[in-house]
Amino acid sequence: MSNNKWIYLFSDVDQAEKHAGSWEATRALLGGKGANLGEMTRIGVPVPPGFTASTEACNAYLEAGEQFPEGMWDQEVAAMAAVEKQTDKKFGDPKNPLLVSCRSGAKFSMPGMMDTVLNIGLNDEVAESMIAMIDDARFVYDAYRRLVHMFGSVVLNIDDEAFEEPLDEYKKEKGYKLDTEMTAEDWKKLTETYKAVIKEQMGFEFPQDPYEQLKLATEAVFKSWNGRRAINYRNAAGIAHDLGTGVNIQTMVFGNMDKSGTGVAFTRNPATGEKKLYGDYLENAQGEDVVAGIRNAEDITTMQATFPKAYADFLEVCDKLEDHYKEMQDVEFTVEHEKLWMLQTRDGKRTAKAAVTIAVDMANEGLISREDAVKRVTPEQVDTLLHPQFIDEAKKKAQETGSFLVSGVNASPGAAVGRVYFDADTAEEKSKEDGQDVIMVRPFTKPDDVHGMLAAKGILTTEGGATSHAAVVARQFGIPCVVGASAARINLETRTLTVGDLVVKEGDWISVDGTSGESFLGRIESVAPSLEEQTDLLELLGWADELTASEGVREFAEGWPTRGLQVWANADYPEDARRARSYGAQGIGLCRTEHMFFEPERLPIVQDMILAGDNVEVRQAALDKLLPYQRQDFDGLFEAMTGLPVIIRLIDPPLHEFMPDERELLEAVIEARVKGETLPEKEALLEDIEALHESNPMMGLRGVRLSVMMPEIVSMQVRAIFEAAADVKLRGFEPKPEVMIPLTGHVNELLFIQPKLEEIAADVMKTKGVEFDYKFGTMIEIPRAGLTADQIAETAEFFSFGTNDLTQFTFGYSRDDAERNFLVKYVEDGILEMNPFQTIDRAGVGQLMKLTVEKGRATRTDLECGICGEHGGDPNSIEWCHLIGLNYVSCSPFRVPIARLAAAHAALTHKK
Amino acid sequence: MSNNKWIYLFSDVDQAEKHAGSWEATRALLGGKGANLGEMTRIGVPVPPGFTASTEACNAYLEAGEQFPEGMWDQEVAAMAAVEKQTDKKFGDPKNPLLVSCRSGAKFSMPGMMDTVLNIGLNDEVAESMIAMIDDARFVYDAYRRLVHMFGSVVLNIDDEAFEEPLDEYKKEKGYKLDTEMTAEDWKKLTETYKAVIKEQMGFEFPQDPYEQLKLATEAVFKSWNGRRAINYRNAAGIAHDLGTGVNIQTMVFGNMDKSGTGVAFTRNPATGEKKLYGDYLENAQGEDVVAGIRNAEDITTMQATFPKAYADFLEVCDKLEDHYKEMQDVEFTVEHEKLWMLQTRDGKRTAKAAVTIAVDMANEGLISREDAVKRVTPEQVDTLLHPQFIDEAKKKAQETGSFLVSGVNASPGAAVGRVYFDADTAEEKSKEDGQDVIMVRPFTKPDDVHGMLAAKGILTTEGGATSHAAVVARQFGIPCVVGASAARINLETRTLTVGDLVVKEGDWISVDGTSGESFLGRIESVAPSLEEQTDLLELLGWADELTASEGVREFAEGWPTRGLQVWANADYPEDARRARSYGAQGIGLCRTEHMFFEPERLPIVQDMILAGDNVEVRQAALDKLLPYQRQDFDGLFEAMTGLPVIIRLIDPPLHEFMPDERELLEAVIEARVKGETLPEKEALLEDIEALHESNPMMGLRGVRLSVMMPEIVSMQVRAIFEAAADVKLRGFEPKPEVMIPLTGHVNELLFIQPKLEEIAADVMKTKGVEFDYKFGTMIEIPRAGLTADQIAETAEFFSFGTNDLTQFTFGYSRDDAERNFLVKYVEDGILEMNPFQTIDRAGVGQLMKLTVEKGRATRTDLECGICGEHGGDPNSIEWCHLIGLNYVSCSPFRVPIARLAAAHAALTHKK
Repeated sequence: MSNNKWIYLFSDVDQAEKHAGSWEATRALLGGKGANLGEMTRIGVPVPPGFTASTEACNAYLEAGEQFPEGMWDQEVAAMAAVEKQTDKKFGDPKNPLLVSCRSGAKFSMPGMMDTVLNIGLNDEVAESMIAMIDDARFVYDAYRRLVHMFGSVVLNIDDEAFEEPLDEYKKEKGYKLDTEMTAEDWKKLTETYKAVIKEQMGFEFPQDPYEQLKLATEAVFKSWNGRRAINYRNAAGIAHDLGTGVNIQTMVFGNMDKSGTGVAFTRNPATGEKKLYGDYLENAQGEDVVAGIRNAEDITTMQATFPKAYADFLEVCDKLEDHYKEMQDVEFTVEHEKLWMLQTRDGKRTAKAAVTIAVDMANEGLISREDAVKRVTPEQVDTLLHPQFIDEAKKKAQETGSFLVSGVNASPGAAVGRVYFDADTAEEKSKEDGQDVIMVRPFTKPDDVHGMLAAKGILTTEGGATSHAAVVARQFGIPCVVGASAARINLETRTLTVGDLVVKEGDWISVDGTSGESFLGRIESVAPSLEEQTDLLELLGWADELTASEGVREFAEGWPTRGLQVWANADYPEDARRARSYGAQGIGLCRTEHMFFEPERLPIVQDMILAGDNVEVRQAALDKLLPYQRQDFDGLFEAMTGLPVIIRLIDPPLHEFMPDERELLEAVIEARVKGETLPEKEALLEDIEALHESNPMMGLRGVRLSVMMPEIVSMQVRAIFEAAADVKLRGFEPKPEVMIPLTGHVNELLFIQPKLEEIAADVMKTKGVEFDYKFGTMIEIPRAGLTADQIAETAEFFSFGTNDLTQFTFGYSRDDAERNFLVKYVEDGILEMNPFQTIDRAGVGQLMKLTVEKGRATRTDLECGICGEHGGDPNSIEWCHLIGLNYVSCSPFRVPIARLAAAHAALTHKK
Repeated sequence: MSNNKWIYLFSDVDQAEKHAGSWEATRALLGGKGANLGEMTRIGVPVPPGFTASTEACNAYLEAGEQFPEGMWDQEVAAMAAVEKQTDKKFGDPKNPLLVSCRSGAKFSMPGMMDTVLNIGLNDEVAESMIAMIDDARFVYDAYRRLVHMFGSVVLNIDDEAFEEPLDEYKKEKGYKLDTEMTAEDWKKLTETYKAVIKEQMGFEFPQDPYEQLKLATEAVFKSWNGRRAINYRNAAGIAHDLGTGVNIQTMVFGNMDKSGTGVAFTRNPATGEKKLYGDYLENAQGEDVVAGIRNAEDITTMQATFPKAYADFLEVCDKLEDHYKEMQDVEFTVEHEKLWMLQTRDGKRTAKAAVTIAVDMANEGLISREDAVKRVTPEQVDTLLHPQFIDEAKKKAQETGSFLVSGVNASPGAAVGRVYFDADTAEEKSKEDGQDVIMVRPFTKPDDVHGMLAAKGILTTEGGATSHAAVVARQFGIPCVVGASAARINLETRTLTVGDLVVKEGDWISVDGTSGESFLGRIESVAPSLEEQTDLLELLGWADELTASEGVREFAEGWPTRGLQVWANADYPEDARRARSYGAQGIGLCRTEHMFFEPERLPIVQDMILAGDNVEVRQAALDKLLPYQRQDFDGLFEAMTGLPVIIRLIDPPLHEFMPDERELLEAVIEARVKGETLPEKEALLEDIEALHESNPMMGLRGVRLSVMMPEIVSMQVRAIFEAAADVKLRGFEPKPEVMIPLTGHVNELLFIQPKLEEIAADVMKTKGVEFDYKFGTMIEIPRAGLTADQIAETAEFFSFGTNDLTQFTFGYSRDDAERNFLVKYVEDGILEMNPFQTIDRAGVGQLMKLTVEKGRATRTDLECGICGEHGGDPNSIEWCHLIGLNYVSCSPFRVPIARLAAAHAALTHKK
């Protein structure tokens, strides 16, 4: 170890990189800040000279029981000599003093976790001499008192209050309010007070020897790696404890001197992405003044007039940095006596919009590849761009004024403002008839609430989780939605929503933030983007599609258009389909036919059909009435999606979902009975509904089971599908219907029903005299279907994973209750890494999916496999779908752009 | 083909066997009857001579468009010559006529499906001549009219009525009631009438040429293979259509002549199995007289006095046949002029009891091996022996007198007679206080009905399936039970059970047959066996265990006592455990702790615990009260099972199951509200219960999820388990507790709770100062647990398949509803081969189990794997458990003997 190099000058970064072996390892060796300072020095950016004590030195120091490793201090002294040479100043020399800062810098940024000591090298003698030289006693004593304060608290571990209290008292005595009122004399006196504090608390004097200051400060930074605060932070952020920190010793530069200034800037606009310098600048100020906003900063361009040379240098540096880092940079700089010094550079944080624009611009400028551009935008950023969002400041203000109402699960993103209504009918009426903006507020929602939900700007429920009915429907239709706001109580009799003391009455305005899960009283300002206008985003998504197609092709996708993982959409209505197509969907992966059954003019017919019981004739009569409606639904869908596949799922939910609420009926009947009245109709209806009751409806009579018991319903649906497709074809379009049978668990279920349905299809085509391609396939949502996929693929021509139900059954979690009852706690406690209803559980459900695809394709090589569950719009899940070789993911139209980007990311991350 | 042999003399069976290659193929070639006649001939049993036209001849005849194959008729004529030689009679010779029968005989028995022609060889001349010789005109004309009738209907396809009508008219004219009143003259006249019928219907005379009779009869039998009746039978029985039938031509012998007789007999008693000839005998009668019971038959032994030589021969033949076939035989014989002729032998049908006794006796006699003895008894037969059964005749009589009530699912076997009560409390009261035999009748049962069920002799429900609560509990406790008797309606207000017009009032007697699923009005006689007295069965089960142990060892069972598949029992109480042990259980595979929570003095404490909500102190206080009860439960269990493992499952069901009925409370609250009253306590309770409500409770907050949310309950349980085990150990017994965590879906659930519980275990053992072996493990009932079994086995020390729930989740079937809603139809329609809740679905659930065992043992080689679901007592499922290498199956104590036999069958069937 004795020959080890512990200290690296910023100008020796080449040496460090050689020792480390890679730039990543150099960042680990020097810490992120030290490596960047070295990097800037290397590429010729003016950086105040300095050096870094490496993380290896830190680790050696800590391992040795807080002893510098052999040779380190000698290297540090030698480095200081080199810096003296570079700056032409001398550390501790009163005539030409070199002052330095001492800052920590680990591999990963740990903002605020570890400390800084500035102005090292000052002492009584140097201070006096500096005053004589620069003729600014206030500046020097201000700097000196800062050193003593920081040294006392950071290096000597004296409580901060011991320094802050004397300052407060002094100001009080003098009647000052601001630090700026302090004079040179005041700071001088305070410096003396601070030195007395150190003497009193430590029993020794503040060290006047600059090298002693330097040594103790270096040690303090090393030690701070194992401080309580740093350890807690690393635990929370998942950073390893054995990395160690580097120590950066850097020449001080001062913007608060004569012909000096300081500023922070972004190389491009971080809000819009515009390629234009964006930042703040203050003449005669220190960096912290800009950050703290004590004085009103000016636009960065004003600097051009004051320091034209420094400004020109700055522009050049910014270009150089962008060119070097291939990223928009967030920089700090100081001008000291008209000379520019760069103090820091890092990749700049930006809004979603800016991220897209910058990525696209940089690719078009040739700075980065299109692949890099696509990789740099996250699917979450695209999500943000597609929904109206509250303006941050407006939200902050609302929070401060006590308008915060309640928090819940952020089920469907976007901002919604409207008046509260507590039931679907009223919500629809107020919206349609009075043109009001409506927020529908319910304990939870059911399928027969959908008309109210569709009429609402936003939805708030007090029960349910991220995949509850309300959440699913809201996401499907892009309606901002917060669910499970369990701190709120709804009283449907008094028509109020109560949270603690806050009471919201029906008709009151509230604002619902589906992105964050918060709700507020009153109206908060929001901004609403549109995809069509976001030309940068459209360009980026186009590149994403190209990359997915060229990188994402898997060998088992043979016989299928070689476009890698496609993105399809879940859409029930022609309008949704058109939107999906305009968002780039390559097909419809799920059209749920039962939503159509809930429409007001149809529901009574549906109920007649159900109540027919064993009377097949009555049921058929009802179905005959439904047929034209269904045909009309599908007609528009096929037309909108001409040339692209449209998967239509046959009826899936248990029949009781179409019936009136059992509890309400029961209460009415009991009430009547107690009063000695009878309600024969209601009693009969109640009995019928009770007969439909199931203990666990999710595992009950639904999907294909219903079709086996009553083939008439799906027969009608298939007739409607093929009649519509035939009509559309005759009008010159290209329908591509795919009929999907839900909830299959055994191949015999398909063998029972599919031939009957194929016969109807053939019959319709023959009668209409047209032909077109079609498929019959099944959802995979029952674990047994996956386990026996080889058998099922003998009959099914395509598989579509219904991962909501598949997750339910594979975990044995009821998604209606699980989140409320235990799932949230499971995720909080880390029992589950993530909510499996939001992101595919790769170890369990995901493995079953993989097995299913393998078994299915073993039987039918060109089996079309996709996903139409909620997970189809989740980027992490989309990556899994790519890995197991699905043909497409299908998601809500609003998530199509997100999924397109996620698909490209998956293809690029795993490209061969 | 021309050199083919089509006809085989009975005495040429060696040649047939040589041609066919095996005895199995000989049966296919000659048909079962022909092969057996040959076989008897071969071993020297006196069989009337004859020959068989082979099935190959039949197939050739049918293929050639109903043409005898070349050479066949010549061979038949030659065979007849050989028979003439053997009998010293001549076919068609009036002086010494040979008469023969012509019978079909296919490879598989098709009783009643194909026809027989007797007395071929008779004609006018032969008849007259015979009368002269034997001086019995009535005998001869009776035989002749039979020939003409059979020939007319079988060979010439004339409607049977054409012959029956003239006979009826004739008897009417004469004033006869019985055929026996017909004189020789009468039969002669009828024979003429019959001949006229043929002439009239066919246009030709009844053929007088015996060879023409023979030829046409042979052809008729061939043709009958393709008759509608035979085809339908084969379709229903799953017999191939290309087998063809043989034709057996055999010398007629007559028991209704002088010094003649006939009989049927079993070589051992088919009811008891006793090694003693058992049968009926009639002097001077024909075989059909014995079968039809026209005259009272005498015991077979009476024949000794009449025909001592023939009787002695018969005994010898019986021994010879048993010795040859190694099976109890069911034989038919005729004595003609004091000479014994054997007409048929086959393996005799027998009762379950006889099956066991015969198998054990034969093994002990050295006739068969112990392995064969074990194989010959079916698990179903053992089942029958363990439950009281109604006497068949008594049941038949009840059926005839209109006492049949209703039919349902035969959920738990055995016969029960008692008075009907419609709720658990009344049932318990009537049983305990009045000493009545009680049948509990309910729409369905819930856990808080268990006290009434335990007090009942039998259970009848109108809802639910084979794995409903009622069914499971009934099987567990060996209570006869019929569920899902859906044709019956229960009116709990009028306290009646109604089926059509039949009304059963509370207190009325009914009889419930859990073996068949039937119920009857009134009391039906039954017989009740006991295992201890069934020494033969005990001996057989002992052999079964030895064979399982020696044949069933699998290599992956290393590190585990090498006994092949063990049989453990599910038992909650010491009494069950003692019974299980006496039935041969090698451990307790499932002790359900929650049944203990339902006991009357405990339930209020349990409810306090639940209603404590977030108040941990209140919950802990309730748990402290429960601890001594639980400790006491386990104490007796460990003592009873000393030296054997006892798996105790921690609390599993959702908490709402312990609460009062929601609906009743709701009605009370609404009633009060309507009356303007308030019931604050009930309202509060209702609110609490509603808070526990889940949409799909099977997939809700239960099992380990409950333990993660409220670790206090299982902490108490584990403390009780280990305190009890310690106490038992201190008293000198050997407790082997295994703690089972239910419903695990993710290894992190175990990692969360198991260490806490292991700490408690260690603490108890330290405090009590004793040590003993124990394990912590988990149920596998969530598909995800199986899919990630490698991870779960890192923490769990044993797996126990909860196949009820595993089947539920893997199929997505709610077992509370599925049978009623679609499962019964699925099985009826063949969509499912069998009810997966009764027999493991090997393709789906079974594959998942196999995968689970493989993954689990990949992590932990000596992982103990067993099954504690209902399937553990099902023979087909037990075979699967053997195939996938489980260590044990665990089932209801009453099924332990059945499972022991099934385990042996599995081991023997798949032995290497």
